[in-house]
Amino acid sequence: MRFTAALCLLAFNVVLLAPVARAQTAASPAVPEAGAILSLLHRQETDWNRGDLDAFATGYKNSPDILFMGRSIRRGYAQMLAGYRKSYPTRAAMGTLSFSALAVQRLDDHFATVTGRFHLERTAAGGGDAGGYYLLVVEKTPAGWKIVRDDTSDEAPQH
Amino acid sequence: MRFTAALCLLAFNVVLLAPVARAQTAASPAVPEAGAILSLLHRQETDWNRGDLDAFATGYKNSPDILFMGRSIRRGYAQMLAGYRKSYPTRAAMGTLSFSALAVQRLDDHFATVTGRFHLERTAAGGGDAGGYYLLVVEKTPAGWKIVRDDTSDEAPQH
Repeated sequence: MRFTAALCLLAFNVVLLAPVARAQTAASPAVPEAGAILSLLHRQETDWNRGDLDAFATGYKNSPDILFMGRSIRRGYAQMLAGYRKSYPTRAAMGTLSFSALAVQRLDDHFATVTGRFHLERTAAGGGDAGGYYLLVVEKTPAGWKIVRDDTSDEAPQH
Repeated sequence: MRFTAALCLLAFNVVLLAPVARAQTAASPAVPEAGAILSLLHRQETDWNRGDLDAFATGYKNSPDILFMGRSIRRGYAQMLAGYRKSYPTRAAMGTLSFSALAVQRLDDHFATVTGRFHLERTAAGGGDAGGYYLLVVEKTPAGWKIVRDDTSDEAPQH
Protein backbone atom coordinates (compact mmCIF):
# COMPACT_ATOMS: atom_id res chain seq x y z
CA MET A 1 0.00 0.00 0.00
CA ARG A 2 1.16 3.45 -0.85
CA PHE A 3 1.10 4.63 2.74
CA THR A 4 1.39 1.43 4.69
CA ALA A 5 3.47 1.98 7.78
CA ALA A 6 6.19 -0.56 8.43
CA LEU A 7 9.02 -0.87 10.84
CA CYS A 8 12.01 -1.94 8.83
CA LEU A 9 15.20 -3.10 10.42
CA LEU A 10 17.96 -3.24 7.87
CA ALA A 11 20.02 -6.35 8.20
CA PHE A 12 23.03 -4.90 6.44
CA ASN A 13 24.13 -2.21 4.00
CA VAL A 14 23.36 0.53 6.44
CA VAL A 15 25.91 2.60 4.56
CA LEU A 16 23.47 2.79 1.66
CA LEU A 17 20.75 4.48 3.67
CA ALA A 18 21.39 7.92 2.23
CA PRO A 19 18.20 9.90 2.47
CA VAL A 20 15.88 9.79 -0.49
CA ALA A 21 15.66 13.54 -0.08
CA ARG A 22 18.82 13.67 -2.16
CA ALA A 23 16.43 13.79 -5.10
CA GLN A 24 15.94 17.38 -6.07
CA THR A 25 12.61 18.94 -5.31
CA ALA A 26 10.74 20.38 -8.26
CA ALA A 27 11.18 19.95 -11.93
CA SER A 28 14.19 19.38 -14.08
CA PRO A 29 14.31 22.09 -16.75
CA ALA A 30 14.36 19.28 -19.30
CA VAL A 31 10.73 18.42 -18.49
CA PRO A 32 8.53 21.12 -20.00
CA GLU A 33 5.39 19.57 -18.56
CA ALA A 34 6.74 18.98 -15.07
CA GLY A 35 4.49 21.72 -13.73
CA ALA A 36 1.39 19.90 -14.91
CA ILE A 37 2.68 16.64 -13.47
CA LEU A 38 3.44 18.20 -10.10
CA SER A 39 -0.02 19.77 -10.10
CA LEU A 40 -1.49 16.29 -10.30
CA LEU A 41 0.32 15.34 -7.10
CA HIS A 42 -0.54 18.53 -5.29
CA ARG A 43 -4.19 17.99 -6.20
CA GLN A 44 -3.93 14.49 -4.74
CA GLU A 45 -2.64 15.93 -1.46
CA THR A 46 -5.53 18.38 -1.33
CA ASP A 47 -8.13 15.72 -2.13
CA TRP A 48 -6.67 13.34 0.46
CA ASN A 49 -6.54 16.01 3.12
CA ARG A 50 -10.21 16.80 2.83
CA GLY A 51 -10.94 13.07 3.14
CA ASP A 52 -12.04 12.55 -0.45
CA LEU A 53 -10.58 9.22 -1.53
CA ASP A 54 -12.66 9.13 -4.72
CA ALA A 55 -11.21 12.43 -5.88
CA PHE A 56 -7.70 11.34 -4.80
CA ALA A 57 -8.04 8.18 -6.88
CA THR A 58 -8.72 10.18 -10.05
CA GLY A 59 -5.02 11.00 -10.04
CA TYR A 60 -4.67 7.47 -11.42
CA LYS A 61 -5.68 6.57 -14.98
CA ASN A 62 -9.07 4.87 -15.05
CA SER A 63 -7.83 1.72 -16.72
CA PRO A 64 -7.57 -2.00 -15.94
CA ASP A 65 -3.90 -1.80 -16.93
CA ILE A 66 -2.65 0.42 -14.13
CA LEU A 67 -0.40 -1.11 -11.52
CA PHE A 68 -0.13 -0.40 -7.84
CA MET A 69 2.79 -2.09 -6.08
CA GLY A 70 3.29 -1.92 -2.36
CA ARG A 71 3.39 -4.96 -0.13
CA SER A 72 1.21 -6.56 -2.79
CA ILE A 73 0.47 -5.94 -6.46
CA ARG A 74 -2.89 -4.50 -7.41
CA ARG A 75 -3.87 -4.20 -11.04
CA GLY A 76 -6.54 -1.89 -12.36
CA TYR A 77 -8.37 1.15 -11.08
CA ALA A 78 -10.97 -0.78 -9.09
CA GLN A 79 -8.38 -2.83 -7.16
CA MET A 80 -6.31 0.28 -6.51
CA LEU A 81 -9.27 2.14 -5.06
CA ALA A 82 -10.44 -0.89 -3.05
CA GLY A 83 -6.97 -1.12 -1.53
CA TYR A 84 -7.02 2.48 -0.41
CA ARG A 85 -10.51 2.06 1.04
CA LYS A 86 -9.45 -0.98 3.03
CA SER A 87 -6.32 0.67 4.39
CA TYR A 88 -7.85 4.04 5.13
CA PRO A 89 -11.40 3.36 6.31
CA THR A 90 -11.69 6.47 8.46
CA ARG A 91 -10.73 10.11 8.32
CA ALA A 92 -8.34 9.48 11.23
CA ALA A 93 -6.63 6.65 9.32
CA MET A 94 -6.14 8.99 6.35
CA GLY A 95 -4.49 11.65 8.48
CA THR A 96 -2.73 14.52 6.77
CA LEU A 97 -0.69 13.70 3.68
CA SER A 98 2.27 15.62 2.33
CA PHE A 99 4.61 14.88 -0.54
CA SER A 100 8.20 16.12 -0.70
CA ALA A 101 11.45 15.70 -2.62
CA LEU A 102 9.50 15.43 -5.86
CA ALA A 103 11.57 14.92 -8.99
CA VAL A 104 10.18 14.53 -12.49
CA GLN A 105 12.06 12.83 -15.32
CA ARG A 106 10.82 12.68 -18.88
CA LEU A 107 10.65 9.39 -20.75
CA ASP A 108 9.10 10.73 -23.96
CA ASP A 109 6.26 13.06 -25.02
CA HIS A 110 3.63 10.90 -23.35
CA PHE A 111 5.35 9.35 -20.34
CA ALA A 112 7.44 10.52 -17.41
CA THR A 113 8.53 9.18 -14.04
CA VAL A 114 8.25 10.89 -10.69
CA THR A 115 10.10 10.07 -7.50
CA GLY A 116 9.02 11.46 -4.18
CA ARG A 117 8.47 10.93 -0.51
CA PHE A 118 5.23 10.87 1.39
CA HIS A 119 4.54 11.63 4.99
CA LEU A 120 1.32 10.85 6.77
CA GLU A 121 0.69 12.70 9.99
CA ARG A 122 -1.81 10.82 12.12
CA THR A 123 -3.04 10.49 15.64
CA ALA A 124 -2.16 7.35 17.55
CA ALA A 125 -5.78 6.28 17.09
CA GLY A 126 -5.40 6.80 13.34
CA GLY A 127 -2.38 4.50 13.24
CA GLY A 128 0.39 6.96 14.03
CA ASP A 129 2.70 8.74 11.60
CA ALA A 130 3.88 6.90 8.51
CA GLY A 131 6.10 7.65 5.56
CA GLY A 132 8.01 6.30 2.64
CA TYR A 133 8.94 6.92 -0.95
CA TYR A 134 7.67 6.06 -4.39
CA LEU A 135 8.38 5.81 -8.06
CA LEU A 136 5.47 6.67 -10.33
CA VAL A 137 5.06 6.37 -14.07
CA VAL A 138 2.68 9.05 -15.33
CA GLU A 139 1.00 9.24 -18.72
CA LYS A 140 -0.34 12.20 -20.64
CA THR A 141 -3.93 11.17 -21.31
CA PRO A 142 -6.79 13.12 -22.90
CA ALA A 143 -7.90 13.80 -19.31
CA GLY A 144 -4.47 15.17 -18.36
CA TRP A 145 -1.45 13.55 -16.70
CA LYS A 146 -2.40 10.41 -14.76
CA ILE A 147 -0.52 7.81 -12.72
CA VAL A 148 -0.27 4.44 -14.51
CA ARG A 149 2.33 2.69 -12.30
CA ASP A 150 2.95 3.26 -8.60
CA ASP A 151 5.67 1.46 -6.65
CA THR A 152 5.57 2.68 -3.07
CA SER A 153 7.82 1.52 -0.26
CA ASP A 154 7.73 2.11 3.44
CA GLU A 155 10.46 4.12 4.98
CA ALA A 156 13.26 2.47 6.87
CA PRO A 157 14.57 4.41 9.83
CA GLN A 158 17.64 6.44 8.94
CA HIS A 159 20.44 5.12 11.11
CA MET B 1 19.74 -1.57 -3.09
CA ARG B 2 18.12 -3.98 -5.44
CA PHE B 3 18.94 -6.97 -3.30
CA THR B 4 19.41 -5.47 0.10
CA ALA B 5 18.06 -7.81 2.74
CA ALA B 6 15.81 -6.27 5.32
CA LEU B 7 13.69 -7.57 8.11
CA CYS B 8 10.40 -5.76 7.87
CA LEU B 9 7.75 -6.01 10.53
CA LEU B 10 4.49 -4.68 9.20
CA ALA B 11 2.75 -2.49 11.69
CA PHE B 12 -0.69 -3.03 10.19
CA ASN B 13 -2.50 -3.92 6.99
CA VAL B 14 -1.39 -7.51 7.15
CA VAL B 15 -4.43 -8.32 5.07
CA LEU B 16 -2.72 -6.63 2.13
CA LEU B 17 0.27 -8.95 2.14
CA ALA B 18 -0.94 -11.03 -0.78
CA PRO B 19 2.08 -12.51 -2.52
CA VAL B 20 3.55 -10.55 -5.37
CA ALA B 21 3.57 -13.85 -7.25
CA ARG B 22 -0.02 -13.01 -8.20
CA ALA B 23 1.57 -11.20 -11.13
CA GLN B 24 1.53 -13.49 -14.11
CA THR B 25 4.80 -14.96 -15.18
CA ALA B 26 5.83 -14.31 -18.76
CA ALA B 27 4.51 -11.93 -21.30
CA SER B 28 1.14 -10.44 -21.89
CA PRO B 29 0.11 -11.13 -25.49
CA ALA B 30 -0.29 -7.38 -25.87
CA VAL B 31 3.48 -6.91 -25.62
CA PRO B 32 5.04 -8.10 -28.87
CA GLU B 33 8.54 -7.40 -27.61
CA ALA B 34 8.10 -9.03 -24.22
CA GLY B 35 10.39 -11.87 -25.27
CA ALA B 36 13.25 -9.47 -25.91
CA ILE B 37 12.62 -7.72 -22.61
CA LEU B 38 12.56 -10.98 -20.66
CA SER B 39 15.80 -12.00 -22.39
CA LEU B 40 17.44 -8.93 -20.92
CA LEU B 41 16.53 -10.11 -17.43
CA HIS B 42 17.57 -13.69 -18.02
CA ARG B 43 20.89 -12.43 -19.30
CA GLN B 44 21.26 -10.44 -16.10
CA GLU B 45 20.70 -13.58 -14.03
CA THR B 46 23.33 -15.44 -16.02
CA ASP B 47 25.86 -12.60 -15.75
CA TRP B 48 25.25 -12.25 -12.02
CA ASN B 49 25.56 -15.96 -11.41
CA ARG B 50 28.98 -16.15 -12.98
CA GLY B 51 30.04 -13.24 -10.78
CA ASP B 52 30.31 -10.67 -13.57
CA LEU B 53 28.88 -7.44 -12.15
CA ASP B 54 30.15 -5.40 -15.11
CA ALA B 55 28.20 -7.54 -17.55
CA PHE B 56 25.16 -7.54 -15.25
CA ALA B 57 25.22 -3.75 -15.17
CA THR B 58 24.98 -3.52 -18.96
CA GLY B 59 21.33 -4.47 -18.52
CA TYR B 60 20.94 -0.83 -17.51
CA LYS B 61 21.13 2.01 -20.03
CA ASN B 62 24.53 3.70 -19.94
CA SER B 63 23.16 7.14 -19.15
CA PRO B 64 23.40 9.71 -16.35
CA ASP B 65 19.58 9.83 -16.37
CA ILE B 66 18.87 6.33 -15.14
CA LEU B 67 17.45 5.92 -11.68
CA PHE B 68 17.99 3.20 -9.12
CA MET B 69 15.73 3.36 -6.08
CA GLY B 70 16.10 1.07 -3.14
CA ARG B 71 16.76 2.29 0.36
CA SER B 72 18.37 5.28 -1.32
CA ILE B 73 18.16 6.90 -4.74
CA ARG B 74 21.07 6.52 -7.11
CA ARG B 75 21.14 8.42 -10.34
CA GLY B 76 23.24 7.52 -13.36
CA TYR B 77 25.07 4.43 -14.54
CA ALA B 78 28.21 5.08 -12.49
CA GLN B 79 26.32 5.46 -9.19
CA MET B 80 24.25 2.37 -9.95
CA LEU B 81 27.32 0.26 -10.58
CA ALA B 82 29.16 1.68 -7.56
CA GLY B 83 26.17 0.74 -5.40
CA TYR B 84 26.22 -2.86 -6.59
CA ARG B 85 29.98 -3.06 -6.04
CA LYS B 86 29.64 -1.78 -2.49
CA SER B 87 26.82 -4.16 -1.60
CA TYR B 88 28.23 -7.23 -3.33
CA PRO B 89 32.00 -7.07 -2.86
CA THR B 90 32.58 -10.82 -3.02
CA ARG B 91 31.30 -13.78 -4.96
CA ALA B 92 29.75 -15.10 -1.73
CA ALA B 93 27.87 -11.84 -1.22
CA MET B 94 26.49 -12.09 -4.76
CA GLY B 95 25.19 -15.60 -4.21
CA THR B 96 22.86 -17.12 -6.78
CA LEU B 97 20.22 -14.84 -8.24
CA SER B 98 16.89 -15.87 -9.69
CA PHE B 99 13.99 -13.81 -10.97
CA SER B 100 10.38 -15.01 -10.94
CA ALA B 101 6.81 -13.83 -11.44
CA LEU B 102 7.93 -11.61 -14.30
CA ALA B 103 5.22 -9.55 -15.96
CA VAL B 104 5.78 -7.12 -18.82
CA GLN B 105 3.42 -4.26 -19.62
CA ARG B 106 3.77 -2.02 -22.63
CA LEU B 107 3.73 1.76 -22.27
CA ASP B 108 4.35 2.61 -25.92
CA ASP B 109 6.66 1.51 -28.75
CA HIS B 110 9.76 2.55 -26.85
CA PHE B 111 8.96 1.96 -23.19
CA ALA B 112 7.54 -0.82 -21.06
CA THR B 113 7.40 -1.74 -17.39
CA VAL B 114 8.35 -5.03 -15.79
CA THR B 115 7.38 -6.32 -12.38
CA GLY B 116 9.12 -9.26 -10.82
CA ARG B 117 10.56 -10.90 -7.76
CA PHE B 118 14.15 -11.66 -7.02
CA HIS B 119 15.63 -14.29 -4.78
CA LEU B 120 19.23 -14.41 -3.71
CA GLU B 121 20.48 -17.72 -2.39
CA ARG B 122 23.55 -17.20 -0.23
CA THR B 123 25.62 -18.84 2.41
CA ALA B 124 25.47 -17.43 5.92
CA ALA B 125 28.94 -16.00 5.29
CA GLY B 126 27.62 -14.32 2.14
CA GLY B 127 24.84 -12.64 4.10
CA GLY B 128 22.16 -15.31 3.98
CA ASP B 129 19.23 -15.55 1.60
CA ALA B 130 17.49 -12.38 0.51
CA GLY B 131 14.55 -11.49 -1.69
CA GLY B 132 12.11 -8.85 -2.75
CA TYR B 133 10.31 -7.39 -5.70
CA TYR B 134 10.79 -4.64 -8.23
CA LEU B 135 9.24 -2.38 -10.79
CA LEU B 136 11.45 -1.58 -13.78
CA VAL B 137 10.97 0.85 -16.64
CA VAL B 138 12.76 -0.45 -19.73
CA GLU B 139 13.57 1.45 -22.91
CA LYS B 140 14.16 0.23 -26.43
CA THR B 141 17.55 1.74 -27.23
CA PRO B 142 19.78 1.27 -30.28
CA ALA B 143 21.67 -1.26 -28.11
CA GLY B 144 18.47 -3.18 -27.32
CA TRP B 145 16.09 -3.04 -24.36
CA LYS B 146 17.70 -1.51 -21.28
CA ILE B 147 16.58 -0.69 -17.74
CA VAL B 148 16.18 3.06 -17.16
CA ARG B 149 14.32 3.04 -13.81
CA ASP B 150 14.56 0.42 -11.07
CA ASP B 151 12.54 0.56 -7.87
CA THR B 152 13.39 -2.46 -5.77
CA SER B 153 11.97 -3.27 -2.36
CA ASP B 154 12.90 -5.85 0.18
CA GLU B 155 10.46 -8.56 0.91
CA ALA B 156 8.38 -8.50 4.03
CA PRO B 157 7.70 -11.84 5.61
CA GLN B 158 4.36 -13.25 4.49
CA HIS B 159 2.24 -13.65 7.62
